[in-house]
Amino acid sequence: MMKLAVSPPILMRSLRKAFFCSAASKWEGGVSMVQGASRGIGLEFARQLLEKNEKGHVIATCRNPDGATGLLELKRKFMERVNIMQLDVTNESTIQATAASIRESYGSLNLLINASGILSVPNVLQPETTLSKVEKSSLLVAYEVNAIGPILVIKHMWPLLRVGGGSGLERKFAVVANLSARVGSIGDNGLGGWHSYRSSKAALNQLTKTISVEFARKKDPIICILLHPGTVDTDLSRPFQRNVPQGKLFTKEFSVQKLLTIIDNSKPSDNGKFFAWNGQEIPW
Amino acid sequence: MMKLAVSPPILMRSLRKAFFCSAASKWEGGVSMVQGASRGIGLEFARQLLEKNEKGHVIATCRNPDGATGLLELKRKFMERVNIMQLDVTNESTIQATAASIRESYGSLNLLINASGILSVPNVLQPETTLSKVEKSSLLVAYEVNAIGPILVIKHMWPLLRVGGGSGLERKFAVVANLSARVGSIGDNGLGGWHSYRSSKAALNQLTKTISVEFARKKDPIICILLHPGTVDTDLSRPFQRNVPQGKLFTKEFSVQKLLTIIDNSKPSDNGKFFAWNGQEIPW
Repeated sequence: MMKLAVSPPILMRSLRKAFFCSAASKWEGGVSMVQGASRGIGLEFARQLLEKNEKGHVIATCRNPDGATGLLELKRKFMERVNIMQLDVTNESTIQATAASIRESYGSLNLLINASGILSVPNVLQPETTLSKVEKSSLLVAYEVNAIGPILVIKHMWPLLRVGGGSGLERKFAVVANLSARVGSIGDNGLGGWHSYRSSKAALNQLTKTISVEFARKKDPIICILLHPGTVDTDLSRPFQRNVPQGKLFTKEFSVQKLLTIIDNSKPSDNGKFFAWNGQEIPW
Repeated sequence: MMKLAVSPPILMRSLRKAFFCSAASKWEGGVSMVQGASRGIGLEFARQLLEKNEKGHVIATCRNPDGATGLLELKRKFMERVNIMQLDVTNESTIQATAASIRESYGSLNLLINASGILSVPNVLQPETTLSKVEKSSLLVAYEVNAIGPILVIKHMWPLLRVGGGSGLERKFAVVANLSARVGSIGDNGLGGWHSYRSSKAALNQLTKTISVEFARKKDPIICILLHPGTVDTDLSRPFQRNVPQGKLFTKEFSVQKLLTIIDNSKPSDNGKFFAWNGQEIPW
């Protein structure tokens, strides 16, 4: 009987690594991750990425994969090109587990879209109409989900993005796109209200800018951009659509098509910038 | 024996109210509150306010009045013109209690300076040098102290500021000055790092702007401004003074003198703006 020079677990790991290393070349068309992909804009990103790039792979993450009917439909249609993973931005261990799983299965990431976000949650967060209604608990929830969560995702995907950006596949850098919102702009804030949402997006904008500076300084092949999707007909905006001017309420299809054009055309000099759906820069 | 038409507690409250209503006219020179006044820039604000305006009263708040040696010194010198109150921005009930106490004793506020802030706290918050070191717990602490705290203080002082601003004392509006920092500017962020501090100040900037819009819309006699004190020789900046160019490390005396000039000269059109110590506006 042959004697193993390495213990079985190490052997298993090496075999698996060898398998996935050779398998890695299969990811022609790039590997994209859409965080917050169970519905709304995130789900539409996953769908369009799969439809546009017939060789691309999409890792679609959400808090509850079993209930993600839209994603399960995509899975049935696009099969092994879709990989649904459980990730909750408020639970860093699920982010780490996802990063480990992507490393094992793909080894790299070419695109990361942080699409999750909250505006109102019954009994937890209501968009504030006045300072009198501002509560610490609501502010903290908004910061945790809208600002901290996406940054922790980037923190753990960073090594994978570095590999993906350096692979020379499609282009010479990986792209991180964080969904922000025009109401997060301080300079553009003429209406007031929505204290938690507005300030969480301003914090996200500052964090994204801060990270973009580090990526540039380290010459990492990664750029970070912030995107304003417009007011899109999703669950998030539904309670607030009453005051949207005619023609300004976009379908998910339209908005995501526009945002993907921005992502596709992005260049290193866009690193750290904040774009609206029509490509115009938004003031901080 | 005379019968009381009202119960003793109500009588006491009425008497106290009558006493304090007549006493209120005594607060010639205005009532200022400095939140975070035990040391550094806050303590210097309290000192200069007391020295500049010999009829003014200063409410100086801090987490631990018993240990606030600088404030106790001011108390010995300026006697009844200084009122030291316990307030911890992370504990909303202490903010409410302070508001109730000011209402009883003064009935109004003409100036509120939010001077508290954290940059580094051993074992809790270290200014991050890289994304790899970003931790949710540090971000949350920075947001709670630097962004949420000052806003909750304004929330509870709002009715007092409305009375003070409408009193016609000195000027026709009350002023809220929140200590921000140039590193909170997203547009000015060329160095990266300090993720928690930078994004907490960006959130504070957005919250202050949001509040300023409401004050203006409601025609409240209050303006809110954001101030960058420069790099000042205090406990907060001490570990980071190594890289400050010569002549750019200010004394507390110099910085606060400049900031008080901005506050003194502020006008309604400054509402919602962000000024450096030299009066220049800082981009968001």
